[in-house]
Amino acid sequence: MASTRRRFLLKAAAIGGAAIGSSTKWKFTRTYSSTVTAAEVTGSTSALQNQERRVPTQPEVEEWYTDRRNWARWGSDDQRGAINLITPDKRMAAAASVRSGRTVSLSRVFEPTQQFIRKNDRGRGGQAGSVVDYYGFIYHGQTVTHIDALCHMWDVDGMWQGRDPSIEIDTQGAHFGDITAWSDGIITRGVLLDVPGYRGEPFVTTDRPVHGWELEDIARAEGVDLQPGDALMVHSGRGAFEQAGNTFGGGDRPGLHVSCAKFIRDHDVALLGWDMMDARPNDYGLPFPVHGVLFNYGVALLDNALLEPLAVACAEESRYEFMFMALPLKVARGTGSPANPIAMF
Amino acid sequence: MASTRRRFLLKAAAIGGAAIGSSTKWKFTRTYSSTVTAAEVTGSTSALQNQERRVPTQPEVEEWYTDRRNWARWGSDDQRGAINLITPDKRMAAAASVRSGRTVSLSRVFEPTQQFIRKNDRGRGGQAGSVVDYYGFIYHGQTVTHIDALCHMWDVDGMWQGRDPSIEIDTQGAHFGDITAWSDGIITRGVLLDVPGYRGEPFVTTDRPVHGWELEDIARAEGVDLQPGDALMVHSGRGAFEQAGNTFGGGDRPGLHVSCAKFIRDHDVALLGWDMMDARPNDYGLPFPVHGVLFNYGVALLDNALLEPLAVACAEESRYEFMFMALPLKVARGTGSPANPIAMF
Amino acid sequence: MASTRRRFLLKAAAIGGAAIGSSTKWKFTRTYSSTVTAAEVTGSTSALQNQERRVPTQPEVEEWYTDRRNWARWGSDDQRGAINLITPDKRMAAAASVRSGRTVSLSRVFEPTQQFIRKNDRGRGGQAGSVVDYYGFIYHGQTVTHIDALCHMWDVDGMWQGRDPSIEIDTQGAHFGDITAWSDGIITRGVLLDVPGYRGEPFVTTDRPVHGWELEDIARAEGVDLQPGDALMVHSGRGAFEQAGNTFGGGDRPGLHVSCAKFIRDHDVALLGWDMMDARPNDYGLPFPVHGVLFNYGVALLDNALLEPLAVACAEESRYEFMFMALPLKVARGTGSPANPIAMF
Amino acid sequence: MASTRRRFLLKAAAIGGAAIGSSTKWKFTRTYSSTVTAAEVTGSTSALQNQERRVPTQPEVEEWYTDRRNWARWGSDDQRGAINLITPDKRMAAAASVRSGRTVSLSRVFEPTQQFIRKNDRGRGGQAGSVVDYYGFIYHGQTVTHIDALCHMWDVDGMWQGRDPSIEIDTQGAHFGDITAWSDGIITRGVLLDVPGYRGEPFVTTDRPVHGWELEDIARAEGVDLQPGDALMVHSGRGAFEQAGNTFGGGDRPGLHVSCAKFIRDHDVALLGWDMMDARPNDYGLPFPVHGVLFNYGVALLDNALLEPLAVACAEESRYEFMFMALPLKVARGTGSPANPIAMF
Repeated sequence: MASTRRRFLLKAAAIGGAAIGSSTKWKFTRTYSSTVTAAEVTGSTSALQNQERRVPTQPEVEEWYTDRRNWARWGSDDQRGAINLITPDKRMAAAASVRSGRTVSLSRVFEPTQQFIRKNDRGRGGQAGSVVDYYGFIYHGQTVTHIDALCHMWDVDGMWQGRDPSIEIDTQGAHFGDITAWSDGIITRGVLLDVPGYRGEPFVTTDRPVHGWELEDIARAEGVDLQPGDALMVHSGRGAFEQAGNTFGGGDRPGLHVSCAKFIRDHDVALLGWDMMDARPNDYGLPFPVHGVLFNYGVALLDNALLEPLAVACAEESRYEFMFMALPLKVARGTGSPANPIAMF
Repeated sequence: MASTRRRFLLKAAAIGGAAIGSSTKWKFTRTYSSTVTAAEVTGSTSALQNQERRVPTQPEVEEWYTDRRNWARWGSDDQRGAINLITPDKRMAAAASVRSGRTVSLSRVFEPTQQFIRKNDRGRGGQAGSVVDYYGFIYHGQTVTHIDALCHMWDVDGMWQGRDPSIEIDTQGAHFGDITAWSDGIITRGVLLDVPGYRGEPFVTTDRPVHGWELEDIARAEGVDLQPGDALMVHSGRGAFEQAGNTFGGGDRPGLHVSCAKFIRDHDVALLGWDMMDARPNDYGLPFPVHGVLFNYGVALLDNALLEPLAVACAEESRYEFMFMALPLKVARGTGSPANPIAMF
Repeated sequence: MASTRRRFLLKAAAIGGAAIGSSTKWKFTRTYSSTVTAAEVTGSTSALQNQERRVPTQPEVEEWYTDRRNWARWGSDDQRGAINLITPDKRMAAAASVRSGRTVSLSRVFEPTQQFIRKNDRGRGGQAGSVVDYYGFIYHGQTVTHIDALCHMWDVDGMWQGRDPSIEIDTQGAHFGDITAWSDGIITRGVLLDVPGYRGEPFVTTDRPVHGWELEDIARAEGVDLQPGDALMVHSGRGAFEQAGNTFGGGDRPGLHVSCAKFIRDHDVALLGWDMMDARPNDYGLPFPVHGVLFNYGVALLDNALLEPLAVACAEESRYEFMFMALPLKVARGTGSPANPIAMF
Repeated sequence: MASTRRRFLLKAAAIGGAAIGSSTKWKFTRTYSSTVTAAEVTGSTSALQNQERRVPTQPEVEEWYTDRRNWARWGSDDQRGAINLITPDKRMAAAASVRSGRTVSLSRVFEPTQQFIRKNDRGRGGQAGSVVDYYGFIYHGQTVTHIDALCHMWDVDGMWQGRDPSIEIDTQGAHFGDITAWSDGIITRGVLLDVPGYRGEPFVTTDRPVHGWELEDIARAEGVDLQPGDALMVHSGRGAFEQAGNTFGGGDRPGLHVSCAKFIRDHDVALLGWDMMDARPNDYGLPFPVHGVLFNYGVALLDNALLEPLAVACAEESRYEFMFMALPLKVARGTGSPANPIAMF
C-alpha cells in the first residue's frame, strides 16, 4: 500500500506538471496517470471492505438518514452542526500544516445576474470620481460557488434538528440554522479526493456515479485519512464534463451516489465541497440523496466549487491535504452565501 | 519602551477581560486603560519623530500622492497593487503565527437591501423542500463590510496605474483593476492599531482625527512593528460612536487624517481595514484623503470593518498581530466585494 | 342648491386659474375659494343626513365590514370585485363624456429603488448603440403611485371572498385576486372630491380626518353624483402637507376616517384613489380602516395618487368628472402594479 | 375597392368569430379568410403605387433616415417627438369613436425576472396582514410588452434631435428624451394592420418580410386610412410563430422591412406597436432598420405587443380602428416603461 501510494503520487505530480506546461486548457487536463487504476489500488482492500462494496438497500439508506442523524448531538438548539467539529485545535493544526504558502481559489468566476454600475463624479472639476456596483443574484442552484446553510433543505421529518420549516422560515428569511451560525469562518483541514485522477478518466459519467467505497479507495490511494472536522472536496471533473459539450443540471446527471453520505457520516466530515452534486436519478426515492447531509448530519455544503485547479495543485505539491478557508458572508437570516474558498498548501 | 509596552498590554488585557464579564454591551466597552496616555508613550519618541508630529503642508501631501505613487512598481499592467507584497513566505509566516486557533469575524451583520425568499416544495407530498434567497445590494458606502478593488476611485491623474476611468469602466463593469485581481485571497499578517484603547476614550472624535504619527505611537505602545504586506486594522471606535447617538456618514466625520497615508506608504501596508474612514473635512482639497491609498499606492481597502471584537480579542490575547484572511468574491468586472474577514490568533 | 353649486364652481375656476398664473408652486396652491365654507353647503342638508353626521359606533363599523361585504356578489370565485361594476356601457359613457381632450397624469414621479443603466454599442464602429435600464422596486407603501390588487390585504376573516391567505399566497406570489384580474384596464367615469378646496385649507390635518358625510357634502358642492362603478378620487392635499414640512407616513397621520368606507359602499365605488390614506389612529381597532374596502368590498385602491394637478384641472374645467384610465401591468401573481393613471376631460 | 373592402371585412368577421368558438387555442387561429389574397387587393393599385412596389436602394433608405428626419420639427429641445401629433382634438376624436366599450389588452403576461413576496402580519393576533412584492426587470428586449423612449437608441448621427448619447446618458439614466416626456399618456386613434389575416397565413416568415407597400395594401383592404398621430399596430403573428416551435430573437428573424419606415413617415404615425420587430438580416447595414423610427422620426415604439386578441376583436367588430391608450410609468430618467396598452372599441 505504501509503495502504491508513493507511485501514485509521483505519477500524479509528473502528469500534473506536464499538463500545466503543455496545454492552455489546463483546467480540463487530466492530472492523474491512467496507469493507476482502481484495480491496482483496491487490490489491497480487506474482505470486510469488499463486503461493503455493493449498492445499499433501501432500509440501509433510510437507516443512515434517520438513526444516524446528528440532531441534538451538540444540543437541541445548536445551529452550527458539524462545524462544531472544527475546534480551535483543529484550526491550529490546519494552519500548522502550511508548507509553501501557495493558495488556490475554489470559486468559479461569479457573474451576478444583476450587476450594474453607477459612476459618481466628484471634486476637482468632475475629474475625480468613483464607481459602485450593484450585485443581485440567487446564488443557490448549479452555477455559483456558494455555501448552503443548514436551513436550506428539509424532508418529511423536518429541517436541521427536526425543526419545522413552516415555522422557522418566512418571507423575511430563516430564523434557525441560517448562515450566520458560521460567521466565524470555516477554517479547517481540507482534503481533496480526486475521482477523475483516480479513475484515469476526464470526468465522472452518468452511468457510473461515485460510491462511498470508492471515496475510501481514493483516500487510500492518495494517502490521506479523513478526520473529524475535515472539509472534504470531491472532484468529479465538471469542467471537463462541460467542456466536452455536456450540460450539468436539469435531468439525469453524474455525481455522488447516496452511499457517499455514509462515508461522510462515518468520517465526521464537517463540510462537503463538490463540483458535481448528487447523481440523478437515485433509486431510493430520496428528494436530496447526498444533499441530505445538510439537514441530517449538519454538514455544510460547498456547491459548484472549482476543483480542477486544486487537483492540479495537489498533484504538483504531492499533497492532498491543505488548509481550507471558507468565510461565508454574515447575512442575517440568510440561507447561504456565495463564497470564494481558498486552499493554502 | 519595553516596560511601557508590557504594562500597556497587561492593563489592556485586564480591562478587556473585565469588560467582557461585566457588560452585555461588550462591543462598545473600552478595552484600554485610560491611565496609559499618549503622553506616557510619546515621551520616548526621538527628536526626529517629534519634527514629524505636525500637520503636513499642502505640497507635502501632494508629494505623497504623486512622487510616491506605486504605479508601475509591479509592472505597468499589474492589477494586484500592494497585494503583491503578500508573498507565499508572508502567508506562511502568517499561518505559522497562529497560537490559539481563536477566530474573530471582522464583519458587521450584513442585511442586503434586497433579501427575498423563495420556498420550493418537492418530493414526498410536498413535505420535502428547500428555500433559496435573493440578495441584492450596493455594498459600497458606509454600512456594509466590504473590500474596495483598485478601480473603485480615481482623481484628476487617473485610476490605478494612471489608467483612464472613462476607458476602463463602462456600464458592464471595470475592465482593469477589478476585484478578481485578488481572487486568490488576501491572507497575510494582520495588525490592529487600537486608537480608543490608546487614547483612553471610547471613540475618535471629529475634532481630533487620527494622525500618522499617532499610528506610530500606538504601534510602539502595542509592541508591534508594521512590515511590508501587512493588513493594517485601525480601530476608531465606530460602534461606541454610534451607540452614543452619533451618525457616521454624510457631513463632517471623525476618522483618519491624510497623514495616515504617509504611514501606510512608509510601512508598505498591503490592506487597510478601518471602522471609521477618512476624517472630514480635510484641509487639502483632496477628494479622497486616505481613500487615495487605493489608486495611488494600490492598497486594498476594507471598509466598515467591525473592529471592536478584534480589539477585545487582542487585549485578551495580549497580541496585536494575527493571521488575517479576507477572501473577496470572484466577481467578474466587480469594483469590490462584500466580505467577512477573519482574524485568527 | 343649484345656485350654491354654480357659485362654488365659478369661484373655484377663477381661483384655480389665477393660481396657475401667479405661482410657480402651482401644485400646492389652493384651488378653492375659502368663502365657500362647509356651513354654506351643508345648510341645505336634510334632517336625515344630519343624523348621520356623527362618528359611528364600533358595532356600526363592524357591521359595515361584515354584513355588507361584497363576497360572492359576483360569484364566489370572482376575482374582479367591484371592477365588475364597470360595464362596457359604463366605459362608453366615460368616453362619451370627453369634451376637451385635456389629459392629466395622476402619478407622482417614479424613482425605482433600483434603477440601473446598461449601454450597448453596436454596428458602425461603435457609434450606434442603445441603452436599457433595470428597474427594481417595492411599489407598495406610501411613496409610489400604484394600484393594490384584491389579494394585498386581509383581516381575521380572510382575504377577498373569505379566502385563506396562507393558502392563496406563497413565495411565488398570489394565486387568487392578483392584479391580472384587471388586465383589461380600469376605464370608467372618474370623480374628484377635493377636500382642501371644499374646506378652504391647504391640506387635511391629523386632528380633522375626512368623514363619509363630508364626502357627501363635497359631492353636493361640486355638483356631482357618485354612481356605481365610478373611480373616486379623494384629494386631501398631501403635496401641500409635505411642502409645509410634514412627513406622511409612520405614526399618526391625516387622511380618511373609517366612515368613508360606508360612503364607498353606499355608492358602489369601483376604485378609490387618494393622496393621503386612512387616518391614524382609528378608534375601532381595525388593522386597515379604509384599506379594508379592498378585501371587504372588492374595491381597487389607487395609492399615492398625485391629485393636486387634477384639482387644478377640475377647477379650470368647472367639471369634477372625467374619463378615468388606469392600466395596471399584467404581472402574473402580482399583488398590485405601479401605475400612471390619466384623467381626460 | 369598396366592394373588395366589404367582402374582406365580412369574411374576416365570419372566420374570426368561428375561430373563437371552435378552438381553445384562439390566440393562434387565423382570423382572416385565405380567399382574400394580396393579388385580389393589389389588383386595384395604381401605376404609381406599383412603381414603389420594389425594394428600395441604399441611397433611398439613407435619404429616408437623414433628409426626412423629424429633428427640430417641434423645436430643437422638444422631447415628445411624434407624440406631439396627438393633439387634444385627436384624443377627443379617439374617445368619440368608441362604440361598444369592448376593451382588449395588448400586453403579454409580464413575469418580472425578479418577483419576490414579503408577507407582513399585523393587528389582531397576527391574523390580519398584507403582502407586498418586489419586481425587478429589464423590460427592453424581445419578451416584455413595453414602450421605448426616444433616448433608447441612436446611430452614428446621434440620438433624437441629434443629441450626443455620451452626454445625455450616464449611469443615472437618460437626461434627454426619457420616458417622462410622455407622462400625460399616449391616447389616440389606433389602427391595426393584420398581416397574417391579409396574407392568409398564420405568421410572417423570415423569407418574406413585411414591406411598406404591403402595409398600404392592407390598410386599403381593411378600409382604414392612416392619419397623423395614429398609433399603428402591425400584427405579424408572433404567437402562432412561436406556437409552431420557432424562437423569435437572436439571429435572423421575420418582421418588418426597412421600407415600413417610409410608410410610417409618410403617414406621420405617432406610435408603432408590433409583435415581431424589424426583420433580420437587412441589406442596408443599418443597425436598427425600423427601430430607427425612434431616433429619426421621434416615433414611440411599443415592443412585444400582444396583437392576436386585437386581430380577433377587430375582425369581430368589423373595425380596424379603435381608441388606443398606453400610459407609460412616469419613471424619472427612464429609457422606457413596461406597459399594458388597451384598445377600446
